[in-house]
Amino acid sequence: MQIVVIGAVAAGMSAASKAKRAQPQARVQVFGREEHVSYAACGLPYYIGGVVAQQRNLIARTREQFAQQGIEVNTGHDVTQILPQQQQICVQTPEGREVKVPYDKLIIATGARPKRPSIPGLDLDGVFTVSTIPETEKIRKAITAGVKRAVIIGGGYIGLETVDALHLQGVEITLLQRSHQVAGTIDPDMAELVQEHMQSKGVDVQTQVQVEEIFGSQTVQGVRTDRGDIPCDLVIVAVGVQPNSELAQGAGIELGVKGAIQVNAKMETSIPNIYAAGDCAVAWHRLYQDNAYIPLGTTANKQGRIAGENAVGGQAEFDGIVGTGIMKVLDLGIGRTGLSTREANHLGKGLETVTVDVSNRARYYPNPGQGRVKLLFDGEGKIWGAQLVGADNFAKRIDVFATALHASFSVQDLAGLDLSYSPPFSPVWDPALVAANVAQSKLEK
Amino acid sequence: MQIVVIGAVAAGMSAASKAKRAQPQARVQVFGREEHVSYAACGLPYYIGGVVAQQRNLIARTREQFAQQGIEVNTGHDVTQILPQQQQICVQTPEGREVKVPYDKLIIATGARPKRPSIPGLDLDGVFTVSTIPETEKIRKAITAGVKRAVIIGGGYIGLETVDALHLQGVEITLLQRSHQVAGTIDPDMAELVQEHMQSKGVDVQTQVQVEEIFGSQTVQGVRTDRGDIPCDLVIVAVGVQPNSELAQGAGIELGVKGAIQVNAKMETSIPNIYAAGDCAVAWHRLYQDNAYIPLGTTANKQGRIAGENAVGGQAEFDGIVGTGIMKVLDLGIGRTGLSTREANHLGKGLETVTVDVSNRARYYPNPGQGRVKLLFDGEGKIWGAQLVGADNFAKRIDVFATALHASFSVQDLAGLDLSYSPPFSPVWDPALVAANVAQSKLEK
Repeated sequence: MQIVVIGAVAAGMSAASKAKRAQPQARVQVFGREEHVSYAACGLPYYIGGVVAQQRNLIARTREQFAQQGIEVNTGHDVTQILPQQQQICVQTPEGREVKVPYDKLIIATGARPKRPSIPGLDLDGVFTVSTIPETEKIRKAITAGVKRAVIIGGGYIGLETVDALHLQGVEITLLQRSHQVAGTIDPDMAELVQEHMQSKGVDVQTQVQVEEIFGSQTVQGVRTDRGDIPCDLVIVAVGVQPNSELAQGAGIELGVKGAIQVNAKMETSIPNIYAAGDCAVAWHRLYQDNAYIPLGTTANKQGRIAGENAVGGQAEFDGIVGTGIMKVLDLGIGRTGLSTREANHLGKGLETVTVDVSNRARYYPNPGQGRVKLLFDGEGKIWGAQLVGADNFAKRIDVFATALHASFSVQDLAGLDLSYSPPFSPVWDPALVAANVAQSKLEK
Repeated sequence: MQIVVIGAVAAGMSAASKAKRAQPQARVQVFGREEHVSYAACGLPYYIGGVVAQQRNLIARTREQFAQQGIEVNTGHDVTQILPQQQQICVQTPEGREVKVPYDKLIIATGARPKRPSIPGLDLDGVFTVSTIPETEKIRKAITAGVKRAVIIGGGYIGLETVDALHLQGVEITLLQRSHQVAGTIDPDMAELVQEHMQSKGVDVQTQVQVEEIFGSQTVQGVRTDRGDIPCDLVIVAVGVQPNSELAQGAGIELGVKGAIQVNAKMETSIPNIYAAGDCAVAWHRLYQDNAYIPLGTTANKQGRIAGENAVGGQAEFDGIVGTGIMKVLDLGIGRTGLSTREANHLGKGLETVTVDVSNRARYYPNPGQGRVKLLFDGEGKIWGAQLVGADNFAKRIDVFATALHASFSVQDLAGLDLSYSPPFSPVWDPALVAANVAQSKLEK
């Protein structure tokens, strides 16, 4: 049995590993365009920030380690075409040769790439995205060479994590956000905490600003906006990602939301014997009750594992996402799960909300830590979402809410949870319980 | 309407506050034996350790603050009798007068007290329990006066938290445990990690040892065991607690497991118009499907709130516990929920287990932190318990398992959870997911 995987990062290597473990006799071949295998893409901002010292620390396993597992990983190999009729793929080798590789089952894990906004100057030296190891290597080199002032375009996950990284490197930062708030996956009132925190640390945050041009001669000298020019010697473009789904599309595979590859719960595409997983594919959203495109490493790994298992005869199904995410920005953590108010409105669902300020540990414990919880629920008390902003590990409490969403809990169910308490770890009324109690009171009125 | 509460700590003040909020016209009177009101009993070990510098930091709210809320708190008042027929209680005032106080609804929140083992020498100077502010004040004074060597009798929650506290104070410690393991609420293999950790920090841990006598003349000089004498100048007795249920029993109120006051989900006792809550009462255990006596601050607060609400006409019900607990011992956190193997055996339930070693953050992130997860589940894959031991906030992940137990999740449900991931907060495969994946593989075999 020949299993072929296109893509050698999270979903791809997760699929390959699972397939080989489940079916050791299968031949498992992976083709990756990049030089690096199985690297932690989510770790790239931490490499920029110097928090992760060595590039090689980001490599989970090397080609040689996969080879020992019996998995053939081919790096620098560009898959140019999928031929579903022949059950073959066309591959360009690093030497430029075209070869055809047959498959019994094919797993597409081609990932995503940064969106390129339509503004002039993207090709100037000193303008980067945060997407691959070589790209971040260049950013590190620029920092070492003495970057003084950076402009980050886009205040989403990557943009904010890059604020964190460049701040650690002592770079002066301007963050430009087209819409009225950073961190668009949380509600504006919660995002305000994040914005204020960044500003308190000296980051220049500008919202509702249009970038018109990145200017310079050969090397970037500044960013032109509708509010004026911002001189800088580094620009990070982080306006979101888009799925690498062109290869699949070329083979006639159906695409779905935002152009991502359509898959069912078994990670099957519309063409037999072809699976897709990870940042190139849609994910079932349990609260949307529809597919969504929310590319994240944890989903990629889960989907890859399922694709790999099913490619060798398994019947695994992806349970779907609830929209959980977490990130660190300077000294704040931001956690979110479920629907934001905007998403709820978009789905035509009017939600109630409560917001509570709580501590992360017992108030008498040293450095108790402050945090804010926003809980979203409907008139019947069913929970639809939660957002957390706070210091230390506060945001990680989002997992309780994510689990509650999987269980379709009400605020009453949440209020009754037997969560752990001890002064170093929590206040006696856990933040989740406080939010649930306040929500219950609101519902009773 | 007259609401009377006996006990002015966690459950009692929680009940009083909720009753007053829900029914502002009600007269709410609280009678507490101790001098202090609404203090954080769970914080006492941290006061001993000097982590909490000031005694007053442990006071959540003062009598005056409650008075502003319209709640009358009477400290130093000893309730000597409950007269259900007359709907009155007999109270001894600080001046020694006997008064009778009528009630429409009575809430008993008399808490628990440390068990006194039947060994000679408990009354020597330098022998303490960890139970009240004055008691811990004495321990602090002893430390300041130059305690060199302490013996802690009992390796449960309080015993281990006292190890933590005295270690911080630079005291040489011997921990004596009658049974074969410390931390009896977790499985022996997990407890071994805790024991090894304490030993690595210089704590002398002795298990399967019998204490025969605490000796000294007026002041403690040592502890005699079946393995020999241990000289010391401080002894902490921490062999568990027992409910203060004698007052209720004297009134003819039915007692339940371990002599704790029997209550239903509404916190009603066997006598009309009398409620009980907190460490003096039983708690419904969702996995036992029976009442249990597991006195903890978080349960006390929840039960108190329900008793208070119902005393003024509410219909709230306690959702029950799943046996969640957490504690910090030196640099380790210990979390547990659900059934341990011993509890499962006791209930006649044979459980499967898996144990995985994981990191608390992405492995390439600085100080990733190590932890061990043990997951307990039955042959159908239903989850029955989990235990975590690890550094930093690792143990707080127990809340996901506790929530999963409330939802009656299977290991497959757990494996499908959309938990949050970002390198500073978690590895890409969350520890809960790793455990669930390994459990699934075990079930498939």
